[in-house]
Amino acid sequence: MKRRDFLKKAGTGTAVAAGALAAPAIASQSREMTIVSTWPRDFPGLGISAQRLAARITELSEGRINTTYYAAGEKVGAFDSFDDVVSGNSQAYIAADYYWKGKHPGFAYFTTVPFGMTTVEWNAWIKFKGGQALWDEVSGEFGLKALPCGATGTQMGGWFNKEINSAEDLKGLKMRIPGLGGDCMAMLGASPVSLPGGQIYENLVSGAIDATEWVGPYNDYFMKFYEAAKYYYYPGFHEPGGGLSFGMNASWWSSLSSWEKALITAASMEEHAAQYEECQANNGEYLAKMIDEHGVVIKEFSDDTFDSFGEAAAEVFENVRDHSALAKKINDDFQANLRELGAWQSIAEVAFSTQRNRVLEIGG
Amino acid sequence: MKRRDFLKKAGTGTAVAAGALAAPAIASQSREMTIVSTWPRDFPGLGISAQRLAARITELSEGRINTTYYAAGEKVGAFDSFDDVVSGNSQAYIAADYYWKGKHPGFAYFTTVPFGMTTVEWNAWIKFKGGQALWDEVSGEFGLKALPCGATGTQMGGWFNKEINSAEDLKGLKMRIPGLGGDCMAMLGASPVSLPGGQIYENLVSGAIDATEWVGPYNDYFMKFYEAAKYYYYPGFHEPGGGLSFGMNASWWSSLSSWEKALITAASMEEHAAQYEECQANNGEYLAKMIDEHGVVIKEFSDDTFDSFGEAAAEVFENVRDHSALAKKINDDFQANLRELGAWQSIAEVAFSTQRNRVLEIGG
Repeated sequence: MKRRDFLKKAGTGTAVAAGALAAPAIASQSREMTIVSTWPRDFPGLGISAQRLAARITELSEGRINTTYYAAGEKVGAFDSFDDVVSGNSQAYIAADYYWKGKHPGFAYFTTVPFGMTTVEWNAWIKFKGGQALWDEVSGEFGLKALPCGATGTQMGGWFNKEINSAEDLKGLKMRIPGLGGDCMAMLGASPVSLPGGQIYENLVSGAIDATEWVGPYNDYFMKFYEAAKYYYYPGFHEPGGGLSFGMNASWWSSLSSWEKALITAASMEEHAAQYEECQANNGEYLAKMIDEHGVVIKEFSDDTFDSFGEAAAEVFENVRDHSALAKKINDDFQANLRELGAWQSIAEVAFSTQRNRVLEIGG
Repeated sequence: MKRRDFLKKAGTGTAVAAGALAAPAIASQSREMTIVSTWPRDFPGLGISAQRLAARITELSEGRINTTYYAAGEKVGAFDSFDDVVSGNSQAYIAADYYWKGKHPGFAYFTTVPFGMTTVEWNAWIKFKGGQALWDEVSGEFGLKALPCGATGTQMGGWFNKEINSAEDLKGLKMRIPGLGGDCMAMLGASPVSLPGGQIYENLVSGAIDATEWVGPYNDYFMKFYEAAKYYYYPGFHEPGGGLSFGMNASWWSSLSSWEKALITAASMEEHAAQYEECQANNGEYLAKMIDEHGVVIKEFSDDTFDSFGEAAAEVFENVRDHSALAKKINDDFQANLRELGAWQSIAEVAFSTQRNRVLEIGG
């Protein structure tokens, strides 16, 4: 007789002998889950991804976790989503946690930080090197529990209306750039501002800001920044990768059954991967459209400019470490893991891509 | 009154007005799903990931899709898993589809091919650039339907008992290397063999083979190849990324409800990401252990060797194109997408990582 090893997971109670299956006992009560977001409705990339996640939870649970999704401004303003979930008025937000760095600078590490991890490295840290526990710690201070739910990958450096040949050229520039990347820009003499996505275009066109970063070609194309700024720089030092946050009210989360938690987690992880991959799939095509249709000029930051970004980032991290014991713990764990994960990637994906692109003459 | 837009997905029938929720009607019948695999039981990385996916499907479905998992040799031999699923004796296999390249060379593109896509690029192609439809086409010719369910990332170049300074040094070498990478090695005068994971060590120690590749430091550490071969080369040209296959019997798959398909898909995507991230999380640490504990010597393939690999790969792809219209279609679509996706990555993840690693002095 063949061996029949049933995989058992503690607590699921679902591993039953084949041939002896009774109808499983399934709790049939329904639960409401109101989700607010920082993205406009139907926004390509970010907005559509958030809507897809909300719908997927309802679908996978067959309505037993019944989600209602509100885009930015439909229930509360984009930046009010944090308070709406903390207060329990909504059960979850979909946002970039670095929007809350004023509440705690540790939040920035759970979106992306300058000179930080790529999305692949960040995922490895969050899921398998202790990152999630640190995220839980800073979220827990505010009554939240977060999971990753999207990512855009290494971002472009931003839109400028003049050439940036060294950090000198950044002085006096008013630029929309949130998170710790904005703090780096301030160190270099620029004036960073944080604006939600829906308000950037009008500020750039009116001249209220001189420059902006947003995401990458696929997301930026629909923002029409090329109407007001012609130079599109790469690579972004300020948002190399990481993820977006599905921030849930912690009391609500702890009231869920193991099955409900597992289902929300699986849907979150599926969408976290999908949004990232959708961006990577579309960025090349939309970059070409920008160049061909709108005369966008693609420029690469010089080594010298990158050295200045690096010096600014080092200072910014020292300031974060001075904030609190938790901020120091998060920064130091992040930096140590970045070096280990980055060293591996340097002989794997990065070394291979560099050789392949050389031999096949791919890229710039 | 606030706008209350419920997200609806066609066919789910779960978007009901808040406050008017009845107990959802849930079908309670159970379905058996027998899964065979090409990985040994409890094998670090690959085996544990496959077991985790099987358990997750049972957990997320609360036993309504009740999985039974058999590791390699427990029900059928590793390389017999294909026939076991095609015949309907099992419902699914977890394997690397390039093991079936003798049945159709198109299968290789749905694991990984020499000079091919990294895992990030492959995911973008499969999910958002038409790759899944081509996979369905080649799988469909054999009565299968496949989904991605794991990935290991860019692999190391392999274990050698002498230095490889140019392609000349590969001549006459008997090397375990499956897929189209093996065909490249044959072009360069080596003798490639395909062996399942559980049989490599004994062949290497006995001298039946001179060299082998497997995966990367985390997976290779437990194989103890360092006892018989001292030089560990990077980067692997032969398996740059891609994914593993959750290959299901197509008739069985088409008999599933939309909900069952959605649930299996979500679990598959969650594990596809997790296995990749677990590898990236552990590779650096296990590489250090190999060097420190076992005196493994890490070497980089020269540009010259990589040029030879590139020439061999180009020839191998021409042979694939000659096989059939479908093989040509798959290869050509893959190559075109590789160039577009690779060009984007070259100014995003690759450009950033290169600059960051230079400034922070990370890696070799």
